[in-house]
Amino acid sequence: MALERLKRDLVKMGSLGRHNGSMVESYEELSVDNGLWRLEGSELSKASKDYLVQKMKEAELKVRYDSIGNIFGRKEGADPFKKAVMSGSHLDSVKNGGQFDGPLGVIGALEAVRTIKEEGFEHSRPIEIAVFVGEEGSAFERGLVGSEVLSGNISLEQGLNLVNNEGELLKNALSGYRGNFNLDLADIEYFLELHPEQGPVLDTEGFSIGIVENITGLSWLRVVIEGEENHAGTTPMKMRKDALVRAADLVTFVHEKAQEMAEKTAGSFVATVGKIEAHPSATNIIPGRVELGIDIRDTRLDNIETFKEAVNERVEGFGRTPGIKTKCELLINKPPSLCSKEVIETVAKAARELDLAAIKMSSGAAHDAQNLAGKVKTAMIFVPSVNGISHSPWEWTDWDDVDKGVRVLTRAIKELAR
Amino acid sequence: MALERLKRDLVKMGSLGRHNGSMVESYEELSVDNGLWRLEGSELSKASKDYLVQKMKEAELKVRYDSIGNIFGRKEGADPFKKAVMSGSHLDSVKNGGQFDGPLGVIGALEAVRTIKEEGFEHSRPIEIAVFVGEEGSAFERGLVGSEVLSGNISLEQGLNLVNNEGELLKNALSGYRGNFNLDLADIEYFLELHPEQGPVLDTEGFSIGIVENITGLSWLRVVIEGEENHAGTTPMKMRKDALVRAADLVTFVHEKAQEMAEKTAGSFVATVGKIEAHPSATNIIPGRVELGIDIRDTRLDNIETFKEAVNERVEGFGRTPGIKTKCELLINKPPSLCSKEVIETVAKAARELDLAAIKMSSGAAHDAQNLAGKVKTAMIFVPSVNGISHSPWEWTDWDDVDKGVRVLTRAIKELAR
Repeated sequence: MALERLKRDLVKMGSLGRHNGSMVESYEELSVDNGLWRLEGSELSKASKDYLVQKMKEAELKVRYDSIGNIFGRKEGADPFKKAVMSGSHLDSVKNGGQFDGPLGVIGALEAVRTIKEEGFEHSRPIEIAVFVGEEGSAFERGLVGSEVLSGNISLEQGLNLVNNEGELLKNALSGYRGNFNLDLADIEYFLELHPEQGPVLDTEGFSIGIVENITGLSWLRVVIEGEENHAGTTPMKMRKDALVRAADLVTFVHEKAQEMAEKTAGSFVATVGKIEAHPSATNIIPGRVELGIDIRDTRLDNIETFKEAVNERVEGFGRTPGIKTKCELLINKPPSLCSKEVIETVAKAARELDLAAIKMSSGAAHDAQNLAGKVKTAMIFVPSVNGISHSPWEWTDWDDVDKGVRVLTRAIKELAR
Repeated sequence: MALERLKRDLVKMGSLGRHNGSMVESYEELSVDNGLWRLEGSELSKASKDYLVQKMKEAELKVRYDSIGNIFGRKEGADPFKKAVMSGSHLDSVKNGGQFDGPLGVIGALEAVRTIKEEGFEHSRPIEIAVFVGEEGSAFERGLVGSEVLSGNISLEQGLNLVNNEGELLKNALSGYRGNFNLDLADIEYFLELHPEQGPVLDTEGFSIGIVENITGLSWLRVVIEGEENHAGTTPMKMRKDALVRAADLVTFVHEKAQEMAEKTAGSFVATVGKIEAHPSATNIIPGRVELGIDIRDTRLDNIETFKEAVNERVEGFGRTPGIKTKCELLINKPPSLCSKEVIETVAKAARELDLAAIKMSSGAAHDAQNLAGKVKTAMIFVPSVNGISHSPWEWTDWDDVDKGVRVLTRAIKELAR
């Protein structure tokens, strides 16, 4: 494996996401206004695909595009009848994100294949590199688009007709990166995704490698509280129907209840009120309407269900006050995904043989791997995120950890493809 | 007094604030998207001044503009050495506001003068109608601009250099409605402002006339809480620095403490968190920064001070958690204004003689009258706001109440100008 080549590709790929095209090689070069803006379907997105496809071709891979815009690069194995080992991730970024979230898993898989090729390592299974389209959901209405369609969770039609912020359909935004090839997951035996952790566990606890055993289930609730917009100076306290006062109660409730659940689940449970929009949000007007977005995650479905019920009950309680109306909608409801014991143990063995400190853990973030997990034997490899930061221009993974992650990935792919 | 003429002028003036120019004569004709958009300095603002000045000239008033853009219309009295009785209000509106807030006090004063003229009523003092520029603060950075400059609270320079949302200076936005005349408040004996209540007291309790004894003091606090923006899925509950959780605590604290103070002050005290802006406000991101706008009002300065200290202390408490930074700024700090006993009693007597049910009350809203109150003998006359609604396209005052208000105003002006 060639760390210099891997690094060069990752830095170059990063530059294809920054407005000024700068090559960022170290944490010290990061700045608040120089993150990646490689939204799916953008010009920079096309440039990143151009670069990757060129590199896959240089590695003599067979490059194919499917109907939703996923990109595949295949190295054949000795036995044409065996199912493939697939590895990959995504190339799109959030707004003002970092250069490793996604590309690490794509370029990492490419480097693994290049290494296998250079070593002349013989394997019977084909190895398929995958780039999933529209993972982040920052441009189009939802994320994980490519893997959702590939795994049959949403239809091709639904995927193609997703609309971005500019009103453009996904099918019209892919600049030629769509094809007729349709990969059948029945032809895939294993899937492995290398990714930064996007959380603080590895960085804080000093592990180089995280082996993902499951990806947490996720529910999103959208709560709307309607009271009565009124003049803050002339409406006596007793006559108010303040929507924000109820919203504040709900934020506190979600936080306290989540802390309680976290203690019961050894820290796996999390819930967050991330979004709050008050209307009209003017200092001298009593807020008449507040919308809240609540994110609930755990590895156990029953915990998520219990929590949602508690939130629902609290919100319904507000509605019993005359003049207060409430709504509580379920926007996303994804059950937890379990990884394959076989793949987990293969990764654990690879880390052990490379003498790297690894820990088994859950992924709190969503990944394309969760869609694959229901269909093929899947696991993920995490590497540390500096300070646990992600979806931010300050996202970084040290080169030493990048190196370790790709070495574990390469060894595990070899083992699975043997 | 001619109700039909008054009504015609008010409805016409209203039409000069609506984008479609429609004449709205009844509550039933109101609609959510047909409020007034007569921001100071806009074309509709100029049209409203053109109309008023024409009407003042028709009434043979001497029209003058001062250097900040206040407009005056003078009817001389018998004694040229006597100080004037002034009455007026503003013509500008909030965004999507109603047609009575401001114009009622201007057209009402005009109608009073027209009536006095037609009746041939003899008075020794001059009567001066005033239109104060930029009362609402919806276009420029602050409100009450005309009366602030007139009373010397801010300099002419400061006033003229206020900037609106489009980056235009006030001095460049007045379309010729600025002059060289500078009115000296030492030449004014009394000031009376007729205005809709903008609150629910008169409407709920069945009074036609409110006599304002004082205008509450007002403080605005801007609180910023900074925590740590992070991934909602991958950051364990224990490792969070959630700015919104602290903000929610503050909203609850402000509300509960304000309720307590309201009980102690027979309902006069109010405090509101009207503004809340969370960053980045995305469901799957722990809010890293929340800004809150708090509005605090009472007729007693010491209550406002006590409350501000309590808020400050609470906010400082958040900052004692490592990773949480806070800021608490005082943006506005206006002491309560007391009205003149003499003018209050004159209004009370007028209402009594007209057999109208009147109640003495506080104004929770800010008015140009509060700036005058420190310099000349001042009071305000309130008429009911339907459902207590204000700063809204649903703002309305019944014509019967408009009539009563203007009759009381006319009678009080006669008495004071006699």
